[in-house]
Amino acid sequence: MTVLILTSRQDVTADMVIAKLHDRGVPLVRLDPADLPGEAALSAEYVQGDFYGHLSTDGRLVSMGALRSIWVRRPGEPAAHAPEPSKWLTAETEQALYGMLYSATVRWMNHPCVAAQARCKPWQLSLAHRSGFAVPPTVITTFPRVARQFAAQYRDIVVKSASGPPPGDPPVALPTTRVAPGTDFSGVAAGPTLLQQYIPKRADIRLTAVGTRLFAARKVSASGQVDGRYGDTGHAWKPLDVPDRIARAVRDYMSLAGLAYAAFDFAEDEEDVWWFLECNQGGQFGFIELETGQPIAEAVAAWLSPPARESS
Amino acid sequence: MTVLILTSRQDVTADMVIAKLHDRGVPLVRLDPADLPGEAALSAEYVQGDFYGHLSTDGRLVSMGALRSIWVRRPGEPAAHAPEPSKWLTAETEQALYGMLYSATVRWMNHPCVAAQARCKPWQLSLAHRSGFAVPPTVITTFPRVARQFAAQYRDIVVKSASGPPPGDPPVALPTTRVAPGTDFSGVAAGPTLLQQYIPKRADIRLTAVGTRLFAARKVSASGQVDGRYGDTGHAWKPLDVPDRIARAVRDYMSLAGLAYAAFDFAEDEEDVWWFLECNQGGQFGFIELETGQPIAEAVAAWLSPPARESS
Repeated sequence: MTVLILTSRQDVTADMVIAKLHDRGVPLVRLDPADLPGEAALSAEYVQGDFYGHLSTDGRLVSMGALRSIWVRRPGEPAAHAPEPSKWLTAETEQALYGMLYSATVRWMNHPCVAAQARCKPWQLSLAHRSGFAVPPTVITTFPRVARQFAAQYRDIVVKSASGPPPGDPPVALPTTRVAPGTDFSGVAAGPTLLQQYIPKRADIRLTAVGTRLFAARKVSASGQVDGRYGDTGHAWKPLDVPDRIARAVRDYMSLAGLAYAAFDFAEDEEDVWWFLECNQGGQFGFIELETGQPIAEAVAAWLSPPARESS
Repeated sequence: MTVLILTSRQDVTADMVIAKLHDRGVPLVRLDPADLPGEAALSAEYVQGDFYGHLSTDGRLVSMGALRSIWVRRPGEPAAHAPEPSKWLTAETEQALYGMLYSATVRWMNHPCVAAQARCKPWQLSLAHRSGFAVPPTVITTFPRVARQFAAQYRDIVVKSASGPPPGDPPVALPTTRVAPGTDFSGVAAGPTLLQQYIPKRADIRLTAVGTRLFAARKVSASGQVDGRYGDTGHAWKPLDVPDRIARAVRDYMSLAGLAYAAFDFAEDEEDVWWFLECNQGGQFGFIELETGQPIAEAVAAWLSPPARESS
């Protein structure tokens, strides 16, 4: 049984997992959908009630029936490397590739349709509530009046993007930012704005969930630091235990969202409460593994691999 | 309980359903996501474990808690009508709107994540097989050799697009086309190509499924006509009964795909077999209703409406 990894050529996180799969002797195929068609080729036949599909890349041929699992890491856009790329060629190639993969009986980390919904931050907040996490009061609004009321009620608030940083080259950093008292909110009418109560935090917590295995890491915050992703705090990520209550909430969240992998970000306050900030279904784990020594790549490889008796 | 309809301004099919909802006295809100923010506004609050959302459009305000159902008809791209549209504004608005809607407890026709997978034609074929439909032998390939073998085996074949017609203005028609004997398939390597055994057909059949209610219509084919969507056959759509075997397969397909609405296209051959061609989760029904008198708009309105005792 073979593992299929969808990712671009330059991906050290994928390399970490591939090394672990090699250690286990598990066959794998690495494919960048951008190389299809061209470097890679595919064929899917639907005949007499049966389905046969295969994929060829780097001189290797893998049949859909021989696939154990698919890891969607950082796949390129289908047909992006074609000699004459076009929107239509991308659409046709995407349908051909993903349609064939959806037809296979495999486990996904994570299924693209599940991932699309899981990326939606407002939905993350309601799911986090339902799963039992502490969630900072949040509003997403295009009503300046609602933004003003929220600021008046919670006083110390931050603003962040709902969908991530703006696209474009060079990339624009968009850290979570505290909102100064007396801010004019009339611009809120021009675009949905996400405001959240500011959580004075002692530490950032990153919890990486791989199936049912959970890896939590903690980094002490620099005084007054708002967004742990930007700036050096002088502290390193250290492993820590996952409280039972959090473990239960993580498993509920993963199950409700249909996720096999996710990276959760929390803010730890002075009273040891872990406040849910977001859940990134495709979050990086390499930097955590390097600093903490937690065997996350090994856990990903184990989840993707066939059960031990099959792989021997 | 209110019905939310996501569609663009010009949509006569939506108008047909809206008339039926008015007849039933069911409150509804019609929103084009392209008008948000601007003509329309939204606000979602996630506070103390509760979620409150509301949407304002055309001077009406609807709370997420009061929503019964959401019909995704032909929604415009979020923020497309903004004074300064941008990819980022579209992404932010999409997250804010759909994130809020995903957080509501409603029935969807169809949920956008379900719809995305259901559009994938190769996946439709394997689902059709699993559901028990007759499916013409089909291959989707980038291997010229495989295309040649398929043509040699099935002789009379057609070529069609996997993803629909190429984007662009003016639109390009791309009818299903018979492949001439001796065709050179070397170009298959440049883009995935969908080849299918040609089914000599007596009639086209369109089956519209609205929840568990099925409406089948039949149109006699013109002699030698390949693609029923193009050209006048001189025949009209006539209603016909749905065989039990087909009804079971449709319900299995809808259930496996998670769909509440779908339009199935079949080719009826000389032996009365209905060959599955495709399933369009957002397929039109207005032209069928106008020619056959089948109450499809009424069925959609009924599915979207609260149960009778609630709406009184």
